[in-house]
Formats: sequence, structure tokens, C-alpha cells
Amino acid sequence: MDSWFGRLGLRAESPRARSRKSAKDLPVDRVSIEEMAPDAGAVLGQAAYLQLGWFEALSRAASAAPDLAAKESLSAAAGRVLAKHTALTEELARRSLDATAAMSPYREQVDRFLEEAEGADWYEALCSIYLTSGLLDDFFARLAAGVRDGGCAISEIIARPDGTDGIVELLTEGMSRNPLLSSRLAVWGRRLVGDTLLVARSALPTHEENAERRIEPVLTELMAEHTRRMDRLGLTA
Amino acid sequence: MDSWFGRLGLRAESPRARSRKSAKDLPVDRVSIEEMAPDAGAVLGQAAYLQLGWFEALSRAASAAPDLAAKESLSAAAGRVLAKHTALTEELARRSLDATAAMSPYREQVDRFLEEAEGADWYEALCSIYLTSGLLDDFFARLAAGVRDGGCAISEIIARPDGTDGIVELLTEGMSRNPLLSSRLAVWGRRLVGDTLLVARSALPTHEENAERRIEPVLTELMAEHTRRMDRLGLTA
Repeated sequence: MDSWFGRLGLRAESPRARSRKSAKDLPVDRVSIEEMAPDAGAVLGQAAYLQLGWFEALSRAASAAPDLAAKESLSAAAGRVLAKHTALTEELARRSLDATAAMSPYREQVDRFLEEAEGADWYEALCSIYLTSGLLDDFFARLAAGVRDGGCAISEIIARPDGTDGIVELLTEGMSRNPLLSSRLAVWGRRLVGDTLLVARSALPTHEENAERRIEPVLTELMAEHTRRMDRLGLTA
Repeated sequence: MDSWFGRLGLRAESPRARSRKSAKDLPVDRVSIEEMAPDAGAVLGQAAYLQLGWFEALSRAASAAPDLAAKESLSAAAGRVLAKHTALTEELARRSLDATAAMSPYREQVDRFLEEAEGADWYEALCSIYLTSGLLDDFFARLAAGVRDGGCAISEIIARPDGTDGIVELLTEGMSRNPLLSSRLAVWGRRLVGDTLLVARSALPTHEENAERRIEPVLTELMAEHTRRMDRLGLTA
């Protein structure tokens, strides 16, 4: 684990993390990550497989939903996430790339990541979907913008609203009935950050010079957005 | 169990069922079921909840798929089935009917039906989705056509292709590797018919005079279509 990751992992668990809500106001070198000019097939493959994973997680959560309203909300989100997956595989096809071949290298890592993110119950699973898809969609939307051919289109697909915001309501309801759930989810939300950043990090070219320095401001922004999502859940990041 | 159902249940397990492939050529009183003028909310609610159930079953099957190509095929089918569900809930909204309230009366029965249809493994689950969604979509598309306000639109939604045909390929592959699977699925396909027809029967108004006589030709057609699906799988109905 190199230093930026180590530092961010630490920051994510620090009480001072809340102060980084102001990070967005700082002047930030936003082109740093985009200038890495990542490979279209790699970004599309990893992002497409992640969407497929969240689709499955949302479908499972919809199946296990305690009432029909929750089932409807989660099924609708599953449908939108699947539509993002499909749009990304269409971008692969436009580049004459095979979707299965492009996704395969990421299958093992993403499967393991999402399996651990399932957590102990329905609420932890929902919390994981909301936080990890939020953070990684932010990350991949920025990374994709640097793809030389049609990067903006890929970025736009990844950034599409996918209805996972409905999870906030479901979790808030659950926490209002069971106050102990709040502290459990706060710990869970902090635990997820490390694994989630590892997935993001695996997408970056390892040979890139100054990768650490370039990625630092992006990570600061990602963590600020993560803190906002935790805030929306009423949890301390 | 009344006589038409009993007779059909019997026929479905009879070797003579194959001969009914010619049933479509017979003159059939197709308006019989439509003339029952079923309640829009009831048909839409039950059909919408069934689509939601198949969506969940397809998502589970996608999660458990042995390779990425199967996962893609089943996820795509799940997405299309969910789109049918959404279109049906939109038809409910157009009629100022609440989707949750319309689906609720069918939840217990459909959940139990789909739970039993899960079968012993991935192949039985796929076989169930293919056969039961085929039979019940046929049935509800016909029943919906009799809804007085906009019945044709509902019927068209239910009859939309949903990509479950991709299951034929997955099952055929599995059976080619494991010949014992064929005989197991043949028994399974026959077992499913009874439960599936019970779901169809529950949608019919019980007070309707001559319901039995009216439904008979429709059931003959439904069974002929079921036999064609079994044929496509290489199984004897």
C-alpha cells in the first residue's frame, strides 16, 4: 500500500474527515487524472463489470425487501444500473471490443470486493451499494473523461443517475426504528472506504510517473463526496 | 380442483399432449376469455407482480451463472422483464391505481409459486422461468385483451419479447454435457404445468357463468404453446 492510499485510508477513518466538506472550494488540478489517458477497453471493462455487480446486489436486495414499496424502489434502481452496464458494453462494441473479454480481467477482484461488501444483513448491503457505487462511479466518471476517443460519452454514462438515492430513504427508515443500526452502519461505512479505494487504485496505470501526486487532489474530492453521502445518511464519516 | 383444470392437468402429463401441436389449426372461439371483461387493476396487478418475480428469478440466475456470456444473457433478460413490469405499473398509474395496492393481493400466491419453481439447481430454475413465463404471459396477454379500457395496450406489453429465449441455448448446452439433465428437466417441465395453470385459474372471475366452457379452448392453445416450448428444449411434454 503506497502513501497516498495509506494516507487516505487513514483520513477516511479520522474525525477530521468532516472538515473536508470544503475541499470542493479549493483550487484543484482536475486534469491530473484525465491526463493519464487510460485505455478505453480497460476503463469500460472494469466499469461495466462493476455495474453488473451492483445490478446483482440491488436485485438481491429487492428480493429480500421487507415491503413492496422497497422492492419497487430497489428493482427500479437495479434496472437503471443494468441500463448503464448495457450502455457501457455498447461503447465496447462501438470500439469492436468484446464485452466478455474486456470484463474478464476484473471479474475476480470485483466479485471478491462485492462479496465482502454484502455485509451482515440487508441494511449493510444497501449501505454498501449506496457508498461504493457512489464513490466508484465518481472515480470512473473522472478517469473515463481522459479516454482519448469518446471519453466524455463514457463519463456521461457512468455519471447517469441510477436511482440508488432511494437507498437513503430505506436506511433512514431502518435507523429511525433501530438506533443501534446507526452506529453499526457508521462503522460499516468507514470500513468500506479502504476496499473501495483499492478497486479505484487498481484501475490506474502502475507505470505512470507521478501517479501519486496526480491522483491526490482527485482522491480529496472523492472523499469529500463520500463524506456528503455519509452525511445524507446521518452518519459521521 | 374443477374439471377443466383436472382434465388439463392430466393432459399435460399425457404422452398424447404432443399431438396438440395441431390445436392452433382448429377453429377456436378466441373471444371466449376476453368476453369475461376482467378488471384492469386485477389483471395489471397480478401480471406486474409476476414480471417482478421473474425479474428476481432471472437476476438470481444471472448471479449464479457459470460464465460471463450466460450472465450477460440472463441480465439482459432480467432488464427486459423489469421493463415490462415498469410498463404495467405505468398502466396502473394511468388509471390512477396504486401499484403496490394492486399487486399486494397476489404477492403471497406468486411468491409461493415462484419459490417452488426455483427447483433444485440453476438448470431447473432456468427451465421454470422459460416455461412458466411463457405460459403465463400467453395467458395474461389474452386475458388482458378483454379489459374494456386499453386492454390491447396491456396485452401488447405482456406479449413483448423479453429475452428469455436465450434460456433455450443455456439449457441445451447443459443437457449436451449431461444427458441425465434432459430426463430430469422433462419431469420438471411436466410438474410445473399444474402449479402454473393454478396461477392462471386464480385470475379468472369465479362468479362467471360458464367459465369452464369459455376457458377450455384457450387452455388448449396454451398447452399447445407449452408443448412447443418443451419441443424447443428437446423435451417431451
